[in-house]
Amino acid sequence: MGNFQGDKAKVRQVLDTVKKSGRDSLTAPEGKLVCEAYGISVPKEGVAGSAGEASKMAAAMGFPVVMKIVSPDILHKTEAGGVVVGVKNADEAATAYDQIIANAKKYKADANILGIQVQQMIRGGQEVIVGAITDDSFGKLVAFGLGGVLVEVLKDVTFRLAPATQDDALSMMDGIQAAEMLKGVRGGEAVNRQAVADTIVRVSQLVADFPEIAELDLNPVFASKDSAIAADVRILVNFSPKEARFRPDEKSVVTSMNRIMKPRAVAVIGASSESGKIGNSVMKNLINGGYKGEIFPIHPKDAEILGYKAYKSVKDVPGEIDTAVFAIPAKFVAGALKECGEKKIAGAILIPSGFGETGNIEGQEELQKIGREYNIRLMGPNIYGFYYTPSNLCATFCTAYDVKGSTALSSQSGGIGMAIIGYSRSAKMGVSAIVGLGNKSDIDEDDLLLFFEQDDNTTVIAQHCEDLKDGRAFAEVAQRVSKKKPVIMLKAGRTSAGAAAASSHTGALAGNDKIYEDVLRQSGVIRARSLRQLLDFARGVPILPTPKGENIVIITGAGGSGVLLSDACVDNGLKLLKPMPDDLDAAFRKFIPPFGAAGNPVDITGGEPPITYINTVRLGLEDDRIHALILGYWHTIVTPPMVFARNMVEIVDEMRKKGKVKPVVASLAGDVEVEEAAQYLYEHGIPAYAYSTEIPVEILGAKYQWARAAGLL
Amino acid sequence: MGNFQGDKAKVRQVLDTVKKSGRDSLTAPEGKLVCEAYGISVPKEGVAGSAGEASKMAAAMGFPVVMKIVSPDILHKTEAGGVVVGVKNADEAATAYDQIIANAKKYKADANILGIQVQQMIRGGQEVIVGAITDDSFGKLVAFGLGGVLVEVLKDVTFRLAPATQDDALSMMDGIQAAEMLKGVRGGEAVNRQAVADTIVRVSQLVADFPEIAELDLNPVFASKDSAIAADVRILVNFSPKEARFRPDEKSVVTSMNRIMKPRAVAVIGASSESGKIGNSVMKNLINGGYKGEIFPIHPKDAEILGYKAYKSVKDVPGEIDTAVFAIPAKFVAGALKECGEKKIAGAILIPSGFGETGNIEGQEELQKIGREYNIRLMGPNIYGFYYTPSNLCATFCTAYDVKGSTALSSQSGGIGMAIIGYSRSAKMGVSAIVGLGNKSDIDEDDLLLFFEQDDNTTVIAQHCEDLKDGRAFAEVAQRVSKKKPVIMLKAGRTSAGAAAASSHTGALAGNDKIYEDVLRQSGVIRARSLRQLLDFARGVPILPTPKGENIVIITGAGGSGVLLSDACVDNGLKLLKPMPDDLDAAFRKFIPPFGAAGNPVDITGGEPPITYINTVRLGLEDDRIHALILGYWHTIVTPPMVFARNMVEIVDEMRKKGKVKPVVASLAGDVEVEEAAQYLYEHGIPAYAYSTEIPVEILGAKYQWARAAGLL
Repeated sequence: MGNFQGDKAKVRQVLDTVKKSGRDSLTAPEGKLVCEAYGISVPKEGVAGSAGEASKMAAAMGFPVVMKIVSPDILHKTEAGGVVVGVKNADEAATAYDQIIANAKKYKADANILGIQVQQMIRGGQEVIVGAITDDSFGKLVAFGLGGVLVEVLKDVTFRLAPATQDDALSMMDGIQAAEMLKGVRGGEAVNRQAVADTIVRVSQLVADFPEIAELDLNPVFASKDSAIAADVRILVNFSPKEARFRPDEKSVVTSMNRIMKPRAVAVIGASSESGKIGNSVMKNLINGGYKGEIFPIHPKDAEILGYKAYKSVKDVPGEIDTAVFAIPAKFVAGALKECGEKKIAGAILIPSGFGETGNIEGQEELQKIGREYNIRLMGPNIYGFYYTPSNLCATFCTAYDVKGSTALSSQSGGIGMAIIGYSRSAKMGVSAIVGLGNKSDIDEDDLLLFFEQDDNTTVIAQHCEDLKDGRAFAEVAQRVSKKKPVIMLKAGRTSAGAAAASSHTGALAGNDKIYEDVLRQSGVIRARSLRQLLDFARGVPILPTPKGENIVIITGAGGSGVLLSDACVDNGLKLLKPMPDDLDAAFRKFIPPFGAAGNPVDITGGEPPITYINTVRLGLEDDRIHALILGYWHTIVTPPMVFARNMVEIVDEMRKKGKVKPVVASLAGDVEVEEAAQYLYEHGIPAYAYSTEIPVEILGAKYQWARAAGLL
Repeated sequence: MGNFQGDKAKVRQVLDTVKKSGRDSLTAPEGKLVCEAYGISVPKEGVAGSAGEASKMAAAMGFPVVMKIVSPDILHKTEAGGVVVGVKNADEAATAYDQIIANAKKYKADANILGIQVQQMIRGGQEVIVGAITDDSFGKLVAFGLGGVLVEVLKDVTFRLAPATQDDALSMMDGIQAAEMLKGVRGGEAVNRQAVADTIVRVSQLVADFPEIAELDLNPVFASKDSAIAADVRILVNFSPKEARFRPDEKSVVTSMNRIMKPRAVAVIGASSESGKIGNSVMKNLINGGYKGEIFPIHPKDAEILGYKAYKSVKDVPGEIDTAVFAIPAKFVAGALKECGEKKIAGAILIPSGFGETGNIEGQEELQKIGREYNIRLMGPNIYGFYYTPSNLCATFCTAYDVKGSTALSSQSGGIGMAIIGYSRSAKMGVSAIVGLGNKSDIDEDDLLLFFEQDDNTTVIAQHCEDLKDGRAFAEVAQRVSKKKPVIMLKAGRTSAGAAAASSHTGALAGNDKIYEDVLRQSGVIRARSLRQLLDFARGVPILPTPKGENIVIITGAGGSGVLLSDACVDNGLKLLKPMPDDLDAAFRKFIPPFGAAGNPVDITGGEPPITYINTVRLGLEDDRIHALILGYWHTIVTPPMVFARNMVEIVDEMRKKGKVKPVVASLAGDVEVEEAAQYLYEHGIPAYAYSTEIPVEILGAKYQWARAAGLL
């Protein structure tokens, strides 16, 4: 995806020279050449041989200019009177030329004078920084920030995958905290956004085209109303970059993943009749979970396990096997895996631990090698397995899970996987899949994205991870998938303490969280800020319809909830319809007591009967200028919780039948009965929370964030 | 609490002049005089009558100086050659003097020359801004920020109540985002912290001493390694400030509040035998709640209500009444209130709505007037009433609440009050009181603080508010109370949308949230960020013991939880004990499998039996270098949830008996059984959450925040 066509040959020539000379950085003139080859503006300069030439040259590049003696014999130019700054016009340039020559001769009569360098003087405007780095996970990234203290002290810098598009570049300029600076403050002029964006795009294309450019820094770039000119260029190179992670083509990923996740036959390697053994739990989960495909227990001795004929090896099994679940000690895994390879099994579910996470790197690498050799994909090792509910498949040693739904979840960690299962069961959250990824020796988040992208049983993907082994691959896939299905991610190891813990836990190298933040956003991924939020989003986002516009109305019985719900809207980037159009305001007022407050929130007041909620919510759903509703319920004897809940479900259904489909979320303030009402609402398509004004709004915010990133708004 | 003694007479003189001349701002020389009177450094200056005098004067104030002609006949000084900047030494000063005089004479031969002004030139260092404003709720506030773009674009400014102490001032310098700038970056020198803090303290004392100073701006102040000098002073005055809110002395507040909250006799004005009426619900709640004092129903006709003798007026009741609960329509309230006044009742619980919140400002002011006249305190109007569980008192029309505990809650809004009741009941959270404040015509948050401060049944105070009618009074009381008992606040109307909603809901004027943020922190108040957090803090903070130090250790079965718990520690300002001392590390390692990770988190790994949790937690509680524990539990069949929970409660109890009392919180990852375990842990002193790594750490963070602010750490 080339965004800008640079002069690659010219850059190649420079880099070849650098490589030949064994350097790992470019000289300033080399850096300038590289910039020029990609149309990145640098100060104009030239060497004049006469006063006339200096005048002409300066006039061509634009004033002011700085003029400097060029002589191998004069090292201290300023001392020699060899520098004149701030030359303002052609006459001054000619005078300066003569003056410098005279000074130089006076300073050193026999100096070999090669001429006078005339260089454009860049000043004023706003100092910005454009750079590029090589990240272990994401590869080439372009960076942008304001110069000086803002970057250094406030770390106000933003990243995008390289190459970046013009839109990416413009979003970077809006994405820094001090974005307003670029628009001109304190009477300053706005910078030329196009010129700055061009610089970002070109830098990003340059490093994308030449992976050997490890680091690049334009610092400062002077951005003015006319131009963006890089006053200083620093380029570091690395001609022996680390090997990229193996990445099969997407088609073969999808083929393998379909066989693994929707197998017609499953082998359990290490199946056992003995209760308490992992191989026994896996067998029971397969059987009791209701899996309809064939089940082949593999055991060195037993002829039958739990009523199923057992085999000594997968190779003895007649017919094809798609998925092999491993429940044997680490030391036997490699041998059995080879047999699976020979049997052309699509995937190995490696429950056993004792590999990378315990320092057994070689053992894990051995598995990876076998996997590659036989084209068998590996899930794990060090995992709980996976669930795929549309096939009633519980390929795991944990408790069975059978509430079907359209959310696919995954976790890097087993503990978090258990929390997912517990929460799902408790909230009656339907899922399509729950997958453990563990050490991610092979299958990782982007493989899952590719599968769930084309899986009609899945509408939302929620992932917990401690690192992305190949952030670049993830981002590229997520960018496409997130346009179709919301992708939600909880990235653990955000902080230095968390990253250290991740490193000792799964060996995850967490990297700079700001990069994750920016690249996930660039990829359209919704980032969950906590485990609970991941779970709440996973539950709520799929059941909300996609909004058709940004105008939100709060309808509340509790004025106090209205205030907190309004705060939550701002916190979550949601826009209240304001001012409420006069006719709509009047229409709401018709339904509420005279001391209620229309406007937005529509405060129907606390003592109202069910019909007031019904009337106002119907109006909110009916009017096409309103795109989503947030309800604030206040528990009273006049409108008990379940009456409210049933009424809301009815009115939303009624309007849905009339084609008025809008996201509705609810916050319930009241005594314990509101918990039952919240559950009822949730199960009927209205994410609702008792005792919380913020969570329902966060869920609506996540849906909006997704819809915007997917270009649906 | 005077922190600095300024020359008040001098300032008074200036202000009198300004007042006499009918101005609302000071001239620059007047501003300078005021600054000098309070020892706030301004550039030195003087007028010299000769070259020699100019030299001496300049040498005395320090170079460089700027010199300017002083002549009523020369308006355009620069044009006349009457200004010389950057005078570097005494000789240059003398030369400049002669030069300026010569230029002036040349420019205008007959000019009346009064002399040459010599002024210290302030440059370099860091530009900062020190200011003061008058806030409607908090009164005089001092503000501090960095000059230029940081304040203007990033709003990086911080506030404290004036007068501010030296410690406050230093905390302001550390409290801005760009604090590092003051310590010297990019080779710059650190500013003189003492000098900047002095400026802040003196400005704050000045505006505290002279309430008529409405606004003051020192912008910029040049802060260098030597000094802080205000280059420009702007002072606005207001000689007719608004009237302060009525504030009884603390002793009489406490006397009244004790009678109201712990009454020996309660009257119910508008008591009713008719089910469904508010006056009936109040009566039933009083009776069924188990209140042991006397109950007097007041009714115009009935002789008996629910078995209690009824009276036509409170004045007919024999003996004293402490509290009168109003359950009559708004229009009758004033009349009944007068009678309560005449009966010397301490407080009126004004449930009725129809006052300020519906625009009936006059009606509410009438009540306030009666309240003041008869010294009867008013709770509300427009409230649900209040609960005080130690007296089994439910003076409310809501459902009864009887789980006793030591948390006192209050809410401005009724809906939020209902959420408090529902959450409390659901979580089995014991409370000492729940109070509705509604329109806050009289009793407000600081009155409650004063009562709960001396109420032995209360250890924690949690408040929801939309505004503080008298933020100054609240802050002053909270500063003291929060040192004894944690004060938690959810401030609604943080955002512009929320503030607008609050204004139309209770007429609350929310003000600048940054001011609330800073002043609440200055007052030692823990700020809850959401309704759920207010409730979680209210539940968890009181049961945690106060930590004795900052060193926290995470002990986890789930490595994945360990990572998220570590992130949460950083997010909540908690410090992990790192590096773990070698002997302690070795001691932990003895208990965990070889592939487990010691360090911090201590990752005991998932498959461990209960004894591993017990051994490591015992060690964590025993060792005095560890001050608090965060537990991460992973549900397995080897250590089921309730086994873990019971073991943890036992070990914590065992160690408590040995004097090892430390805060412990827990995050439980697992299937639904972890919910029961979490509840068990919570009820036994260990705040625990299922499916959340962040909430238990937030609660521990709140406890630490309080302990630090209260000076206990």
